[in-house]
Amino acid sequence: MSDLLATLSNTGIAKQLGLPTVPTLRRHRPGDPLLAGPVLVASVGESRFAKAVTAFVEEQGVPALTAVGEDRLHGVVVDLSGARTLADLAAAQQILTPAVKRLGPSGRVLLIGAEPAEASGAEAAAVAQSLDGLVRSIGKELRFGATANLLVVAADVTPAAIDSSVRFFLSARSAYVDGQVAHVAAPVGQPREPGEVDDPRAEEQPLAGRIAVVTGAARGIGAAIADTLARDGASIVAVDIPAAGEGLARTANRTGGTALQLDITASDAADRLLSHLADRHDGVDIVVHNAGITRDKLLANMTSDRWDSVLGVNLGAQLTINEALLAKGSPLHEAGRVVCVSSQSGIAGNRGQTNYAASKAGVIGMVRALAPRFAERGATINAVAPGFIETDMTATMPVATREGGRRINSLKQGGLPVDVAEAIGWFGRAESGGLNGQVVRVCGQSMLGA
Amino acid sequence: MSDLLATLSNTGIAKQLGLPTVPTLRRHRPGDPLLAGPVLVASVGESRFAKAVTAFVEEQGVPALTAVGEDRLHGVVVDLSGARTLADLAAAQQILTPAVKRLGPSGRVLLIGAEPAEASGAEAAAVAQSLDGLVRSIGKELRFGATANLLVVAADVTPAAIDSSVRFFLSARSAYVDGQVAHVAAPVGQPREPGEVDDPRAEEQPLAGRIAVVTGAARGIGAAIADTLARDGASIVAVDIPAAGEGLARTANRTGGTALQLDITASDAADRLLSHLADRHDGVDIVVHNAGITRDKLLANMTSDRWDSVLGVNLGAQLTINEALLAKGSPLHEAGRVVCVSSQSGIAGNRGQTNYAASKAGVIGMVRALAPRFAERGATINAVAPGFIETDMTATMPVATREGGRRINSLKQGGLPVDVAEAIGWFGRAESGGLNGQVVRVCGQSMLGA
Repeated sequence: MSDLLATLSNTGIAKQLGLPTVPTLRRHRPGDPLLAGPVLVASVGESRFAKAVTAFVEEQGVPALTAVGEDRLHGVVVDLSGARTLADLAAAQQILTPAVKRLGPSGRVLLIGAEPAEASGAEAAAVAQSLDGLVRSIGKELRFGATANLLVVAADVTPAAIDSSVRFFLSARSAYVDGQVAHVAAPVGQPREPGEVDDPRAEEQPLAGRIAVVTGAARGIGAAIADTLARDGASIVAVDIPAAGEGLARTANRTGGTALQLDITASDAADRLLSHLADRHDGVDIVVHNAGITRDKLLANMTSDRWDSVLGVNLGAQLTINEALLAKGSPLHEAGRVVCVSSQSGIAGNRGQTNYAASKAGVIGMVRALAPRFAERGATINAVAPGFIETDMTATMPVATREGGRRINSLKQGGLPVDVAEAIGWFGRAESGGLNGQVVRVCGQSMLGA
Repeated sequence: MSDLLATLSNTGIAKQLGLPTVPTLRRHRPGDPLLAGPVLVASVGESRFAKAVTAFVEEQGVPALTAVGEDRLHGVVVDLSGARTLADLAAAQQILTPAVKRLGPSGRVLLIGAEPAEASGAEAAAVAQSLDGLVRSIGKELRFGATANLLVVAADVTPAAIDSSVRFFLSARSAYVDGQVAHVAAPVGQPREPGEVDDPRAEEQPLAGRIAVVTGAARGIGAAIADTLARDGASIVAVDIPAAGEGLARTANRTGGTALQLDITASDAADRLLSHLADRHDGVDIVVHNAGITRDKLLANMTSDRWDSVLGVNLGAQLTINEALLAKGSPLHEAGRVVCVSSQSGIAGNRGQTNYAASKAGVIGMVRALAPRFAERGATINAVAPGFIETDMTATMPVATREGGRRINSLKQGGLPVDVAEAIGWFGRAESGGLNGQVVRVCGQSMLGA
């Protein structure tokens, strides 16, 4: 009875506050088509990518349209990499207005823009940067699980270099990535051609043959990362502390991978991890720094113990292992991909989380600093920054805090651990060598930022 | 009676929702001391700025402490520009924890950090970037109108180059600037020594002898900018469209300045403005691009008219005038300061504002692109990005939207037009040549971001 009353009362409050209903997000299931229907592919100015996007979309069995008709659209890709003037920008609005009107549930808007720092002239730079404000506004306007994202491409980038990113943003794999901007540069290492796109199985197993280490893999987001990378073809080396041995064994068994019990803050942790990879696995392709802890406390009441443990696990251990991966004779293969888990708190800050936010901002600083060094060996390092993701931790939050966290984003719901995992899989692909030093939020376009 | 009921009801709702009381912000009044009480000045690692900050604070008649005692603090400055390791970061926590516990109302936390991009090594880069997450978290924890901000200083920056920024962030002029990060590089043009700090009048008239143009000066934020720059000693050239002539005349009279009726989107606007400045004023020192319009509409219903008018006023006119200011024979003096008004919407995007957000993001792209070109002539260009500022426009918002806008920031209130104006005055100082290509939000640390 009191539950019923609570429900009625909550419903009343939700209605009073005008809370919208929660859309069901389309998520990746092996065998599903890329998109449920046609995609508009258009461009303004010199078109660098429209042809390749069209070819890719059609190879996936999805119709590519060149103009808006009466059909419902499931995707809209506008190549604005050649947009230089306010007139070009106005042309983009003319394309987008009728297109977004026809965009269906879980539809995709993907803008491709030029790198503002490379623009010749202030107007071109302004136009390139304006796409940032435009795409974030579109994300906030779209409904029913549709998303809007921006790929910023350097002048020397070929269509092959953005292929894995176009796949990610158009597909259901990017369900909870919204309002984001990713920069693509010329790929590091040997440029790789995209997989055999006319074989649909290649798209299902983009990580086939790759060995992936995941720290903190016993449960929660780490377990989902292991599951998802395994689903996509990777061999998993699941790492977690000895106390989490049972969950770790479950992850290893479920993914058909191996388990390594390791405290990543131990002084010999990097040595042990890398020896294990060299001896037992003939090296590694993907390293996911997922392990992390929180020890929340207001700064006024912060203790050294809480500060040091959070900084040590979330940042110090990553720094040490990354240096080892960069050292001579490291087992990291060419086209190696290091992916770090940062956090929205590291971007926006968070009350009660000075230690956690400092560690996660530190991860961003580390990723940017190490990107050129990994590039020297043909590898990359990037970060995902999760927003509100449904885990055991969020399940224990007070109800109002949890509901607030779930609602305060464009998709009006929390993300799932698999959403974080899918973004890591995107960075993990050999074809994603154009992404380096990037930080992409997996937050449903959380309103919270800086 | 219905007003009373509304008030009671609102109070009830506010209590139910646990809304905190609204702190009164200390704002600058000529003659007031810099701060109402002592400032802790500390450093970690090699101290580059603590001595100069101490000297400045004491010259202002405010005690500078080197350690936390029993006194209530009104400011906390920690020079972390020499912090390189996680141990250094832990030392910062040890300084900050007791300090923030003693921070009084409208207190100031100012961290000084190194430039992450210049760091030697990943750990130093991580530590430098961690301050970003740390200071934004502190901002969200502080209460009673206290603020926390971060100055990021390049390796070749001297204490003189950060002087005007330290003054701004410690003073009541920065009342509504919270959770922000400003980067200071070596000053462009002839480095200027800070004003005669032992003469307190110099601090009251930092813009004495400077000529400042303000567009959109007839009312609202533009009028406040004119008033504030005039209060600080500048001669005002107030610009607005002919239809706003009455308000424009009032601004000119109030500030003892002159008025120029000009549609900034007219094809001869830049010529007319610059001729006016050259002929009537012997040039110009400060140009404030404040004029802006909104024509809100969802993108799905956007018209060319609404798109073009917003982009034309908010971005196109600024582009044209800036090119004219950069042209040979321009009346812009050395140590010229161009300050553009962007918006939080240009950073975070906003529903119903694709046109406005695109224009305001475009302003950011323009500022970054033009910074090196203005530097070549000893001038700078920067932007302020206001959040929720109380104006005639916000006064007409629906009550729930307005209250939401006011509350969703760390200071739990909307800002005032003068808060935007004070930040512009900071950029406008001849001593602020170390700030170039910067975007600083005046938003009370609005939670909204990207």
